[in-house]
Amino acid sequence: MSGQVDASVVALGGGHGLHASLSALRRVVDELTAIVTVADNGGSSGRLRGEFGVLPPGDLRMALAALCGDDEWGQTWARLLQHRFDGTGEMKGHTVGNLLIVGLWELLGNHVAALEWVGRLLGAHGRVLPMAITPMDIHAEVRGLDPADPDVLTHVQGQVAVARTEGHLTGIQLDPPDPEPCPEAIEAVNSADWIVLGPGSWFTSVIPHLIVPGLHRAIAGSDGRVIVVLNLEEQKGETSGYQPEDLLGALLHHAPDLAVHTVLADPRAVPDAELLEQVVVGLGAQLVIEDVSMDDGSPRHDPEKLAGAYARIMRGV
Amino acid sequence: MSGQVDASVVALGGGHGLHASLSALRRVVDELTAIVTVADNGGSSGRLRGEFGVLPPGDLRMALAALCGDDEWGQTWARLLQHRFDGTGEMKGHTVGNLLIVGLWELLGNHVAALEWVGRLLGAHGRVLPMAITPMDIHAEVRGLDPADPDVLTHVQGQVAVARTEGHLTGIQLDPPDPEPCPEAIEAVNSADWIVLGPGSWFTSVIPHLIVPGLHRAIAGSDGRVIVVLNLEEQKGETSGYQPEDLLGALLHHAPDLAVHTVLADPRAVPDAELLEQVVVGLGAQLVIEDVSMDDGSPRHDPEKLAGAYARIMRGV
Repeated sequence: MSGQVDASVVALGGGHGLHASLSALRRVVDELTAIVTVADNGGSSGRLRGEFGVLPPGDLRMALAALCGDDEWGQTWARLLQHRFDGTGEMKGHTVGNLLIVGLWELLGNHVAALEWVGRLLGAHGRVLPMAITPMDIHAEVRGLDPADPDVLTHVQGQVAVARTEGHLTGIQLDPPDPEPCPEAIEAVNSADWIVLGPGSWFTSVIPHLIVPGLHRAIAGSDGRVIVVLNLEEQKGETSGYQPEDLLGALLHHAPDLAVHTVLADPRAVPDAELLEQVVVGLGAQLVIEDVSMDDGSPRHDPEKLAGAYARIMRGV
Repeated sequence: MSGQVDASVVALGGGHGLHASLSALRRVVDELTAIVTVADNGGSSGRLRGEFGVLPPGDLRMALAALCGDDEWGQTWARLLQHRFDGTGEMKGHTVGNLLIVGLWELLGNHVAALEWVGRLLGAHGRVLPMAITPMDIHAEVRGLDPADPDVLTHVQGQVAVARTEGHLTGIQLDPPDPEPCPEAIEAVNSADWIVLGPGSWFTSVIPHLIVPGLHRAIAGSDGRVIVVLNLEEQKGETSGYQPEDLLGALLHHAPDLAVHTVLADPRAVPDAELLEQVVVGLGAQLVIEDVSMDDGSPRHDPEKLAGAYARIMRGV
């Protein structure tokens, strides 16, 4: 445990990356809000979205699980939320948490209220909000998919296809292009002391927040200081061949007006520290290179180490 | 509120009848255990039982919902447990509570532990246990289904078919005939001060407890005093044409060694009080005829009135 940070923190992302960030932040931050991508069109989320016309619940569920405590209570419910039905029939692949969330959405008719009830049920250490209140799709322009001409840009549709593309992603758009942001998420960003972007699937979980126009304006206009947490390795498909500087470049390409305060990177994912330092300083930000990865060598963030790094950055030490 | 009764009470049944009984008992009893039939083969329960080979969760879920408190917390979770997915696809007809329970069974590998976790989650006012730890089916001998000879007995299989039969039910059996009772249920019966049977679907929810041999032995051998709560009306299908005396007769037919302490009936369901009194006294029991039904005339027990009746019987006033 790294001691408490008396600050209001918003963490933006989705999937396993946001899960790692929240697992760390809940250890050090008093007032924590997760804002979660809702563009998933695959797996259990995709099926439920198709059947009920609701937001894809998967990334929201994973964020809620990350906010569960370390005691037996918290860990049992976290495991249940994440539990995926096996079996051989219609339930196969669905997770209990997704069904719980969709059931509450149907019952209460309000995404935000339902997520708050689930959070209270679990004793979650923080709030989970969707980045928009209607589902959306991610589209991408991808170079290198046409064997006849490697410079041709191909249009790829849907989060699953975008995340798995074999080509080089140059940028993404949303469909609809101007989804209605979640008002409570905008408020949280407006009053945040710190805004954490990443780690995670860069184009399908992190950057989408910056291209929801209303959310982008709130982030760019907030007094909250922005921390960008870089990934521990390239992600096969969407960031194949990307260096740390390229991740920052992609972020700024989609949000040129984003003022970054700190970039946090693990030494194992920084092949050229001098180059990265140069780029980060050029953005007017500070670079923190610190071991925040698991000791077993797997490309995952260690919640305790990451919590320590967040606490030091936020305390300015 | 009718004041607390300092007693350990076990309520046996299933479905809406047990729900009504528990909704009343949780208002007056400190130590309450529900023991629930697990023979359902229809609807969401039937599908989950078929897909996962688990106990049918529906009646257990309904009992848990009945034990939720009257405050906003309890009532929201009760409604969520009972919420049935609408939609048009694979989830249609499943209830959230059934999926939650089956998910926990898969996760923990233990029916009793999983039900205890759900109870803790909801802040349930009591425990819910299955009457057996493996699923079973109900079979019945039915008279009057053969138009050529109305005295011929027809063998009907499965709870759904038995409950809906158009003939006259003469008795039921279980398949397997000797299911393994739940050890915690046996313990609860052994140490109970009061054992409540009914109201509910007489042949498919109440009597099954008396023909699980291990549970029957425990009930017949317990020092707990037995209260039998009669239904408010005939149930089309399984008890068409049954008078209150016939319900008692059917119960005793399956458990001749059952010592009944009190029979509770509503005046609207007692066409001949003198006859019923005679039968009840013949069993060595006392008859309590008291208004315990809803004021709107619907054939449902009023939880407050039923709670008051239970409290008076258990306090001996």
